[in-house]
Amino acid sequence: MKYLEEILHKHPDPAHSDGSAALACIRACFDCAATCTACADACLSEDDVAAMAHCVRLNLDCADVCEATGRLIARPSERDFKALHAQLEACAAACRACGDECRKHGDEGIEHCAVCAEACRACAEACDAMAGALVA
Amino acid sequence: MKYLEEILHKHPDPAHSDGSAALACIRACFDCAATCTACADACLSEDDVAAMAHCVRLNLDCADVCEATGRLIARPSERDFKALHAQLEACAAACRACGDECRKHGDEGIEHCAVCAEACRACAEACDAMAGALVA
Amino acid sequence: MKYLEEILHKHPDPAHSDGSAALACIRACFDCAATCTACADACLSEDDVAAMAHCVRLNLDCADVCEATGRLIARPSERDFKALHAQLEACAAACRACGDECRKHGDEGIEHCAVCAEACRACAEACDAMAGALVA
Amino acid sequence: MKYLEEILHKHPDPAHSDGSAALACIRACFDCAATCTACADACLSEDDVAAMAHCVRLNLDCADVCEATGRLIARPSERDFKALHAQLEACAAACRACGDECRKHGDEGIEHCAVCAEACRACAEACDAMAGALVA
Repeated sequence: MKYLEEILHKHPDPAHSDGSAALACIRACFDCAATCTACADACLSEDDVAAMAHCVRLNLDCADVCEATGRLIARPSERDFKALHAQLEACAAACRACGDECRKHGDEGIEHCAVCAEACRACAEACDAMAGALVA
Repeated sequence: MKYLEEILHKHPDPAHSDGSAALACIRACFDCAATCTACADACLSEDDVAAMAHCVRLNLDCADVCEATGRLIARPSERDFKALHAQLEACAAACRACGDECRKHGDEGIEHCAVCAEACRACAEACDAMAGALVA
Repeated sequence: MKYLEEILHKHPDPAHSDGSAALACIRACFDCAATCTACADACLSEDDVAAMAHCVRLNLDCADVCEATGRLIARPSERDFKALHAQLEACAAACRACGDECRKHGDEGIEHCAVCAEACRACAEACDAMAGALVA
Repeated sequence: MKYLEEILHKHPDPAHSDGSAALACIRACFDCAATCTACADACLSEDDVAAMAHCVRLNLDCADVCEATGRLIARPSERDFKALHAQLEACAAACRACGDECRKHGDEGIEHCAVCAEACRACAEACDAMAGALVA
């Protein structure tokens, strides 16, 4: 996401102290959203689809929450601390729920779920870091 | 949203006790998302756009969060209690932040903001009710 | 979506001739998006999930396209005719692809798919009507 | 988006000939969506907000369309050729409309708009390439 990185440096309201945490968080959110979207699709292509239904469900929730969270962080100008903090917590929770389920399937040898578990873990950590970088 | 109402009655996994709260919450989320989207656009059409910039910002955040929340509730089959509860709290917080700002402009005579403040208030209440209806 | 209807009447830039078509189109788009989201979830709860995988895929695409289209139409102030027309065509195409698949399952007795087929048909028609109401 | 790249290589249904075009297109769509989201926010932070209102409008439309398009391409398993082709055309049109407006502001010295114009140009080209790689 090279244009995203460039544009955050050109933003006219750069006073926030959360710059590098914000960039890392937006990237993690959109990467996790796209990865969960692809994981749900890959699950639907598995031979035993029924065994993957719960994973698809969590993938879809996680993709939606990550995308909304990424958008909020991509608007650095005027942060509502309380609402943003709550959204970052919700995103970390969605990532952990999805990542736990994906990890189980990954341990059983389903490789796309193993990748998705990593994307979810990385995004949950980026949300935690961003929440810590927010100035109340 | 008549098809939404119909389809929730046809869902093969209707065991959840949150049926009517879920329908009300999905409706409130999508109505608030669309109303905030239109309010941001209306704000950008006001003569004094600069005075509305903060309202546009909160409208955009609120629309994104409401939409993600509405999608989660529209998937009744397997709820992750913790993640869903956190998202409902984040949505209520986004609605309150946006609603407070819209209310101010509404009190100054900007009618679209007065409508949007009501949509935000209704959505925050629906999220609170849905959070209460969730079975842990 | 009563707040959406109210706010469109309060928009300061009401000069567009597409008012009633726009309201109907936004409503149809968000109803179809929510209905497709719920249909995908209901499909994942069916006994024979494998038979529903293609339907889930089309439901997810349709929900995403309808939501983006609904948001565009909910911003009436300055329409880019060419981009909006193309999006309305893409939305009608997504609705027809999903609606055709849902109709098949509906004819086989899966009731939520029958409802979703109707939501898709209604949304495709609303997009066609909106495309006709756009002033180039 | 390293996890996205990894997961596309692990997808169980890799028969599509559009692999590298798909990865490039998803990346371009999400980068453009995030960049347009940040550009709208940066525009709202400019001293002369009124001069940027049209740009904000196009940024918001472009972000929504790019995000939906990126999601569709991130589901490689079963493509509906006609609907996907129409969505790629709509996305290229949204990117061109937004990119043209951003280019104007970029030429006037507003640096974030210059970056966004490049993101839009790159995304339009990626959508064109993806449309050409689709197998009817």
